[in-house]
Amino acid sequence: MSTILPPQNPEDNKRIKAIFEDIRATRGSNFINNLWRYLAFDINLLETTWRDVKTIMARPSNLDPMTKELIYTAVSIANSCEYCIHSHTAAARSKGMNDAQYAEFLAIVSLAGRTNHLLNGIKVPIDPEFKHENKA
Amino acid sequence: MSTILPPQNPEDNKRIKAIFEDIRATRGSNFINNLWRYLAFDINLLETTWRDVKTIMARPSNLDPMTKELIYTAVSIANSCEYCIHSHTAAARSKGMNDAQYAEFLAIVSLAGRTNHLLNGIKVPIDPEFKHENKA
Amino acid sequence: MSTILPPQNPEDNKRIKAIFEDIRATRGSNFINNLWRYLAFDINLLETTWRDVKTIMARPSNLDPMTKELIYTAVSIANSCEYCIHSHTAAARSKGMNDAQYAEFLAIVSLAGRTNHLLNGIKVPIDPEFKHENKA
Amino acid sequence: MSTILPPQNPEDNKRIKAIFEDIRATRGSNFINNLWRYLAFDINLLETTWRDVKTIMARPSNLDPMTKELIYTAVSIANSCEYCIHSHTAAARSKGMNDAQYAEFLAIVSLAGRTNHLLNGIKVPIDPEFKHENKA
Amino acid sequence: MSTILPPQNPEDNKRIKAIFEDIRATRGSNFINNLWRYLAFDINLLETTWRDVKTIMARPSNLDPMTKELIYTAVSIANSCEYCIHSHTAAARSKGMNDAQYAEFLAIVSLAGRTNHLLNGIKVPIDPEFKHENKA
Amino acid sequence: MSTILPPQNPEDNKRIKAIFEDIRATRGSNFINNLWRYLAFDINLLETTWRDVKTIMARPSNLDPMTKELIYTAVSIANSCEYCIHSHTAAARSKGMNDAQYAEFLAIVSLAGRTNHLLNGIKVPIDPEFKHENKA
Repeated sequence: MSTILPPQNPEDNKRIKAIFEDIRATRGSNFINNLWRYLAFDINLLETTWRDVKTIMARPSNLDPMTKELIYTAVSIANSCEYCIHSHTAAARSKGMNDAQYAEFLAIVSLAGRTNHLLNGIKVPIDPEFKHENKA
Repeated sequence: MSTILPPQNPEDNKRIKAIFEDIRATRGSNFINNLWRYLAFDINLLETTWRDVKTIMARPSNLDPMTKELIYTAVSIANSCEYCIHSHTAAARSKGMNDAQYAEFLAIVSLAGRTNHLLNGIKVPIDPEFKHENKA
Repeated sequence: MSTILPPQNPEDNKRIKAIFEDIRATRGSNFINNLWRYLAFDINLLETTWRDVKTIMARPSNLDPMTKELIYTAVSIANSCEYCIHSHTAAARSKGMNDAQYAEFLAIVSLAGRTNHLLNGIKVPIDPEFKHENKA
Repeated sequence: MSTILPPQNPEDNKRIKAIFEDIRATRGSNFINNLWRYLAFDINLLETTWRDVKTIMARPSNLDPMTKELIYTAVSIANSCEYCIHSHTAAARSKGMNDAQYAEFLAIVSLAGRTNHLLNGIKVPIDPEFKHENKA
Repeated sequence: MSTILPPQNPEDNKRIKAIFEDIRATRGSNFINNLWRYLAFDINLLETTWRDVKTIMARPSNLDPMTKELIYTAVSIANSCEYCIHSHTAAARSKGMNDAQYAEFLAIVSLAGRTNHLLNGIKVPIDPEFKHENKA
Repeated sequence: MSTILPPQNPEDNKRIKAIFEDIRATRGSNFINNLWRYLAFDINLLETTWRDVKTIMARPSNLDPMTKELIYTAVSIANSCEYCIHSHTAAARSKGMNDAQYAEFLAIVSLAGRTNHLLNGIKVPIDPEFKHENKA
């Protein structure tokens, strides 16, 4: 159950059609996932969200594509966003993640969950050695 | 302010000393950060936590060391664990992360924060195309 | 799947019946949503929860009813409470929210999600100019 | 303690200077808060973040300015982002929020925190009456 | 830095004085912690919050007092509420928690953090055997 | 929908079979819940997770078994982990929790959710009286 209804024939609207075509061209795929079909209920929300995703995820980068998807999935797990977990786990796989890497990823994410709770419970003081300014 | 007091001379205890020496050997550094100094208030908690961190973060892996630290930091940001953010951002730097990569990392983490909230608000249905089982 | 079973004929119990009638009278509607039907498994939990919701959401207020529902929904999205998201998004609509306002609301909530992650990642120091005491 | 160092004389850089001037003009104030001073460590991150904040928070809108800040603050509280809480509580005050409104806002945010936990604990099934599609 | 100023002489106000006296009598201590001193900026917020805390934490109960504080602290750690972590860890100690119990508590909380992330990542289907209805 | 496929006949693998038998022996039950069936996709992840759960939840302890499950469930609710909520609520029941205790547990968890949001919103300064060091 969703809080909005996606428009029935979104590409009858020229601005929506232009964005959907940009999504297809950027990704080299005809598939438009539900995120974009639902956001089409408001053209501004669709445009600004796609602009951001395209800028950050599809541009030339100093991080490799699979790493970027793993970072995205890690945040989505911690925030309990079911849609994002599925879409970015699938994206990581499509960018080369194998089962052994996924198992390691899950081990790191859950270890972080463990020590995050441990340290938030104890409130260990931060070591001055971690300070970036000291090393510049 | 912390909820526990770290023991004054932890390495007077043989089991603690053995763990601290293993930390130093594993990391190739004399530095023992506060996490371990505070956990030393309970030897079981210290041992099981270090065992896990060593197993997952220091073993031969299919993910490169910087990527592992970025995943760890991403979860820690989403969970708002200040100590973990500082220690693992510092670790990512020590494993090669430069400022451009850090800026990209932050852009991805905050984009995930954005779409996590957007999709949790709308509850967009999950595309069957994301299903792993369909592709095996 | 829920962790409790709602009682079958809750209004056979006089105290439950009185609360359900107060809910109907306060809201001017015969509809009793599942939250109250499930909480009826424990009369104290039902009474204290309804007392709070009534006091805070139904009293004369310095905030307009739609704004109150938007604040409620914003917190529920950040906490990933699916029931609360649906019930309070519906309540905001019943208090006048149109699609354009909902789209703006989602844009703000997701922008907050973005900068929350960005600033929790960097730990930017708080400007003294934000201090309320300085302005009194 | 922050994970990055803000540049010393950011406005020596023409692109940064242009953004800072746009912030001043948009807000009608000479004050540049630390968020922007720190983000200036990476010009792309600064530009894309400001573009979003300006588009969403400063444009003509169907929600009044104080309501927008309350929504922003509500999410920031739930995400435990200390900087965002202070900056947007201060912004809500500068847009007219008085102490009585702030107390009501806090009552709603904390009531949401209460029922979010209650309903996430019980997993009450969502009433079909909340479905938007049923009402269109 | 706080978002509000506590009133200077709160007990000059009769309603505030009555609540502070009830806090002292209920707890058998003269100490009024900052939570109540700050909430006194709004008498309604103070009254409704204290009413709830008193009802739930101080009434005769089927759970022992230390267990109640451990549950409270566990939630506060997961929500990263620094004040609540300190106040309820201290309360658990005052109700008998020793260091060994605290270490076990931290081990459980952090194990939960670990498996919460693991299961939210994988989205393991819920076993029908967990269903309460099946066992009644 | 899950992100991985559980192996079809997991106990054909000797290491998996040994772990499943240890789970059965430790719990005195033939039932292996889905968590373990899914984790079996990666033998290391299965082994390290079970080792931790067994060590922490099944060892002789200074906290009673029901209390341990309540702490686990409290964290799981705050983190919105649906599987964990169901499995540990069921475990608390199997260790003796009755409906009145469950209602009280929910009242405490949701009260914590309430004051966590209230105090994270106001950022009340922490009383020095809470400091453990002052009392040792």
